Amino acid sequence: MSGKSSKEIYFDNAATTAPLFFDCADGKSPLPYPANPSSPHGLGIRAERKLADARKDFAEILGCRPGEIIFTSGGTESNNLAILGFALANKRRGVTLFCEPQAHPSVIEPIKFAAELGLAEIGDRRDLEGPSRGLRLVCLSHVSHETGDICNLAETAARLKRENPETVVFADGAQGFCKEFGHTGVDMYSFSGHKIHGAAGFGGLYSGVRLVPFSRGGGQENGLRSGTENLHGAIQTACAAKHLAANLEENHARVAAIKAALREIAYALPDVTENALSDVVSPYILNLSFAGIKGETLVHVLSENGIFASMGAACRSRKKQKSALEAMGFSKERAESAVRFSFSHLNTLEEAEIAKRVVIEKVSELRRILKRPVS
Amino acid sequence: MSGKSSKEIYFDNAATTAPLFFDCADGKSPLPYPANPSSPHGLGIRAERKLADARKDFAEILGCRPGEIIFTSGGTESNNLAILGFALANKRRGVTLFCEPQAHPSVIEPIKFAAELGLAEIGDRRDLEGPSRGLRLVCLSHVSHETGDICNLAETAARLKRENPETVVFADGAQGFCKEFGHTGVDMYSFSGHKIHGAAGFGGLYSGVRLVPFSRGGGQENGLRSGTENLHGAIQTACAAKHLAANLEENHARVAAIKAALREIAYALPDVTENALSDVVSPYILNLSFAGIKGETLVHVLSENGIFASMGAACRSRKKQKSALEAMGFSKERAESAVRFSFSHLNTLEEAEIAKRVVIEKVSELRRILKRPVS
Repeated sequence: MSGKSSKEIYFDNAATTAPLFFDCADGKSPLPYPANPSSPHGLGIRAERKLADARKDFAEILGCRPGEIIFTSGGTESNNLAILGFALANKRRGVTLFCEPQAHPSVIEPIKFAAELGLAEIGDRRDLEGPSRGLRLVCLSHVSHETGDICNLAETAARLKRENPETVVFADGAQGFCKEFGHTGVDMYSFSGHKIHGAAGFGGLYSGVRLVPFSRGGGQENGLRSGTENLHGAIQTACAAKHLAANLEENHARVAAIKAALREIAYALPDVTENALSDVVSPYILNLSFAGIKGETLVHVLSENGIFASMGAACRSRKKQKSALEAMGFSKERAESAVRFSFSHLNTLEEAEIAKRVVIEKVSELRRILKRPVS
Repeated sequence: MSGKSSKEIYFDNAATTAPLFFDCADGKSPLPYPANPSSPHGLGIRAERKLADARKDFAEILGCRPGEIIFTSGGTESNNLAILGFALANKRRGVTLFCEPQAHPSVIEPIKFAAELGLAEIGDRRDLEGPSRGLRLVCLSHVSHETGDICNLAETAARLKRENPETVVFADGAQGFCKEFGHTGVDMYSFSGHKIHGAAGFGGLYSGVRLVPFSRGGGQENGLRSGTENLHGAIQTACAAKHLAANLEENHARVAAIKAALREIAYALPDVTENALSDVVSPYILNLSFAGIKGETLVHVLSENGIFASMGAACRSRKKQKSALEAMGFSKERAESAVRFSFSHLNTLEEAEIAKRVVIEKVSELRRILKRPVS
């Protein structure tokens, strides 16, 4: 990859894949005539057709009708539209909103906001099996932003709907889309362009249920999302998505090997633990805690040595919000010493080997410096 | 411009300028490492700095502090944030919202929505001079999307505030930003990337007043607009904005000559009237009515002949909403026979001369075909 020294290794692909639009011929240079897809002349109609083509690509990947895909400005807006849009659409029937404590802020915050506006109530996940008034919207993460834990959406959605037929299921697909199978069985599914080498500022939402938009204007996207469409973003992201979806298994195997190589850190060093809730974890994410070292410190030291990882979801990492790992039940110390390595199929095994050596060296050094005896 | 035959003339720049990112070195190819500006490592910090640089560029153009610029996904979101964000922030004091009847749907619709949610009341513009409870937010258009009429923002805002000191003034700057001077004197001002050869899917809002966000998540943009920042969009648009702002007067003169050449249609043909409310009209927009011919028909005929214009704001044009021209007081017939030509400094006088000849020829032909005697 151009523009970086050969020893720079980017393992923060869950924050943003790099580079963006990596091999999309259409995405490499600006279209000479983007035009406005709502314009009535020939160029506008051509732009609208290109947008429709992109929409068809996403529908094919998600196994839905093109009309069920709403293009947005990204994962956050998609999650907001799913939650606020559902609450607005069903205000009269009454809506209770549920999510996991470790959900992404773009799921947790709109739920709180919907409650503030008096559009819905917030449900306690422990009460999911009991009865509730009106409809319930359960928000899942396809793949956890923090640990990579995979949720079996089809199974979970089926169980939830069996327990209470008034249940609608939404999945935040930002980390799962085009990386994992199994986006089926849910009523809504969000995705983000820049998590799959597509465009930042572009995302989408599959919705099989009725929504009411909260951002309003010209009524684009079938009335559900106003604003001139980000045609470049759609084309670039559709291109990236098709490429990833077509090579999903191959990419999966490739990334799994990278993760396995890096995971050897946990065998080479004492007191390194892998953070995950189950054995069903995405190969794209490896979350390790290094006892005695703050994650933030290690991330900075690694960054100085050309290896880019993070403490967790970027949206949380610089904001001192309560750690998602703590919300998942891990101890404060373990949460604070966590580093998330996240991969792309564009990473190499060689990068993993180099990173492994650097991490082992730097962790050992830091532990010596911090003069903290390792038990 | 590549990719089009030499006789294609694009006069729909008010819908979307073409091409986008026209000469921004930084914008031409994707950054090798975009990274997430919220990521804690070195690349994230570099991305954050690039974002800060772009923000500084916009602040310089608008004469405000960088912290007063909120980046969004475009003009529509900016207008929604200004209106809903202000209504949310001042719900307790009570807010009355005012706009012009010909305002863009991205101004009119969030006003209606704020009222639906019980966050604010809708005021009648005729009552602007009278007293009202609580705060009033008056929404102006810097440059009309339809006719190009320019509002003297500083003068209007000063008068409104004199009449009622509880007045806050917002201007939709989509058609004025980097094309007209005089964005001063208002409390909020929105802009759109793709109207100035920047990026679609990127825009911003200057706000000197407190807002409460309606789309929520990781708390980017100082808590006012969540979602991973569109770094490419910001860089591309900042580059385009700087270029346009630095050449504002030169571009103005260039575009004025193009408009003057095309306006000769009105002297060469009978029953062609220019639609504008005053003499203070942007040179970037020419709105003409051709008696006896539907605007839609002429737009299609011109499109077939390689000239791309529209009936008005793209957001309205394919939606059969009540015409903005009618809302401005023009007759139904005049509104229905209107065509909006909109220019960029990248257009040439030669294009205007060609377009003039084609319009004159096609209008004469259509009038003959429609067998409608010209009075």
